[in-house]
Amino acid sequence: MTGAACGAIARTMTDDPPFSPALLPAGFVDLLTPDARTEAEGVDALMGVFASHGYDRVRPPLMEFEETLLAGSGSSLTEQSFRVMDPDTRRMMVLRPDITPQIARMAATRLGGAARPLRLSYSGSCVVVMPAAAEESGRQIMQAGIELIGPDTPHADAEVVSVAAEALDHLGVPGVSFDLTMPPFVPALLEEAGVPPTVRPALMRALDRKDAAAVAELGGMLAETLIALLRAAGPAEQAVALLARINLPPRSRAIIQRLADTVEAVRALNPTLRLTVDPVEFRGWKYHTGVCVTVFAVGRSEELGRGGRYLCNDNEPACGLTFRPDVLFRMIPPAAARPRVYLAPGADRHVAASLRKQGYATLAALGGLAVTGSAQGGGAAAPTGPERDRAEARRLGCSHILSGATCTELE
Amino acid sequence: MTGAACGAIARTMTDDPPFSPALLPAGFVDLLTPDARTEAEGVDALMGVFASHGYDRVRPPLMEFEETLLAGSGSSLTEQSFRVMDPDTRRMMVLRPDITPQIARMAATRLGGAARPLRLSYSGSCVVVMPAAAEESGRQIMQAGIELIGPDTPHADAEVVSVAAEALDHLGVPGVSFDLTMPPFVPALLEEAGVPPTVRPALMRALDRKDAAAVAELGGMLAETLIALLRAAGPAEQAVALLARINLPPRSRAIIQRLADTVEAVRALNPTLRLTVDPVEFRGWKYHTGVCVTVFAVGRSEELGRGGRYLCNDNEPACGLTFRPDVLFRMIPPAAARPRVYLAPGADRHVAASLRKQGYATLAALGGLAVTGSAQGGGAAAPTGPERDRAEARRLGCSHILSGATCTELE
Repeated sequence: MTGAACGAIARTMTDDPPFSPALLPAGFVDLLTPDARTEAEGVDALMGVFASHGYDRVRPPLMEFEETLLAGSGSSLTEQSFRVMDPDTRRMMVLRPDITPQIARMAATRLGGAARPLRLSYSGSCVVVMPAAAEESGRQIMQAGIELIGPDTPHADAEVVSVAAEALDHLGVPGVSFDLTMPPFVPALLEEAGVPPTVRPALMRALDRKDAAAVAELGGMLAETLIALLRAAGPAEQAVALLARINLPPRSRAIIQRLADTVEAVRALNPTLRLTVDPVEFRGWKYHTGVCVTVFAVGRSEELGRGGRYLCNDNEPACGLTFRPDVLFRMIPPAAARPRVYLAPGADRHVAASLRKQGYATLAALGGLAVTGSAQGGGAAAPTGPERDRAEARRLGCSHILSGATCTELE
Repeated sequence: MTGAACGAIARTMTDDPPFSPALLPAGFVDLLTPDARTEAEGVDALMGVFASHGYDRVRPPLMEFEETLLAGSGSSLTEQSFRVMDPDTRRMMVLRPDITPQIARMAATRLGGAARPLRLSYSGSCVVVMPAAAEESGRQIMQAGIELIGPDTPHADAEVVSVAAEALDHLGVPGVSFDLTMPPFVPALLEEAGVPPTVRPALMRALDRKDAAAVAELGGMLAETLIALLRAAGPAEQAVALLARINLPPRSRAIIQRLADTVEAVRALNPTLRLTVDPVEFRGWKYHTGVCVTVFAVGRSEELGRGGRYLCNDNEPACGLTFRPDVLFRMIPPAAARPRVYLAPGADRHVAASLRKQGYATLAALGGLAVTGSAQGGGAAAPTGPERDRAEARRLGCSHILSGATCTELE
């Protein structure tokens, strides 16, 4: 992946190759207005919905010691993490590639004594060494999410899904779909059914590719069951009904029953949510131990968010969901800009303050600034004061001008 | 500096020394509620004031190539910067220690063609290798600020001061004071007055310490002038009047005149602002070329923010001011928390949604959760449903309980 691939190269270059002063590393970008504002306001909107369900905001740091961040649920993130040495302690510090393991650490230590269920929310940036193949959005990853620590119940899983759905609805993201999966199910089934360990990797790859022919060939006694499981994937209620008819050994049956219970609990909270189930999906989950969820928008391949059930550093149950605001903000209209008023020299300060309170942005004239455009060149007469002010207002993208105490809309 | 020195050690430790799973590197902290919310809402409030004056929000990345971030105005930040190798290009990347040089880069490249004056605002975290001695607030530094690029006028300097003052007023920070300095003045004066280069370092140290005796001893022909300059520091109008009486060579006089013009321009925008001037202060400024400003709160030694005039990467004039929200939020009341309503099992979903719209946080009962406290232990009768719900509501810090469609305040 090159810098060009992520759109990070600026349009204006003031230097020759090989190195432009505008070049950013692949996966890092400058957000401008309105995108930067849309993202910030989108995060605020998400955090507001989280708070309305009792999720308390926390802000873990950008860096931690390797021993804390990559312990417990974070151990699967080692390869994704930039590390630097702390000159103070000579220990290695990690630039966080994910916030959830930090919440898991906090829940197990400083918040170990806080009342359960512990509901926490967070937003912030993470950095990964290289973006996952499917993630085009780079190495600096914005996250905003919730974690619900304590109860290991379908109701807890369902609350996380339901709050996330409400947040997307509040943001105005159209056509949202939640896909429930159970990453521990396939490994548990293969083990419980006695599939030989030598066969399991190839069989799991076949299941991952949804390759029914290969599953039939490799599945042995379990082939019929596995193909039925593959076919069960789809809208949640239909999938649950199909899964109920499949003959499963006890532990695997219990795992699928928990998935069915979660579907029922989600429906109790949100009867109309677009909800699908894929029982054999397990790829891409790192530290998850139960029901997982991926959030999509219909017709788009990028994930809007993902989450699921995991264990905190002291093995306390937890589940959560993390949105990707940098993906989300591309799906919602840009944040509305304040209409702009140019403050001509001598504009009334109090009227200007009142305009700002009404939602305008006021752009003050700054002494000594040359006006570009009509004032330049040849024998043309210099524009008069009001004419010059109007030209300046237009040049700065203003729709109004304040002269003295009088605010006028530009024609 | 050790981890203990910055308060980063969690209260609950689940492991023995030498390494606690709760330990964070010195200068990195977990913010909890309400601090995390106070900071986030404080930043929002600052950004809102910036936007009302036409400052467009941008969001540069956490990391950049060393060649771009530490070029131009950023070159003085090299020692403060963590660096890692980009495995893609094998170039060194820098974790930003400051946002202003990123804005200077953007102004010179991607925004090189945007209309001037270019008003930009930003917020985000930076990381420094070691905190400056005076900065107790750590190595992860939150910044929120504005940059005004293009005009090199007292009016531009004054706008930055005035917008910053309005932002602090909006935030409710009490007893704010702005101190104006002119870092290039002392070096220019010593050179212009012909002070021998061998004497200058000792003389500058004496000026920095405000040590009048040493200044008298080292100052030679300039001693009287320098002592008058030391004595001129104080409230802005008084300082300007004192400075006007001091005999200065032409270039030094012009620098001081610009300071006086800035005071006048600030006064035109904000007649009541607490404004001081220190003409011989120059320490701690890295890339600044003109009037600089430090923001204090009366009776506190920590800086709330600082800024000043500098040159963008292509030598375009600019000035800006950056707040430290992590310092500011300790000076304002905690953000108001939503009152909490416990949703007993079976609580009406629509009433709960309506309560959230009214500003309550609703905390739903989650099936299967054991109630701690009165339900435990010995022969005591288990509490009845409503009694149990009220106990659970209190345990979770709720002031109200919603049972069915009825919301009751807890006595």
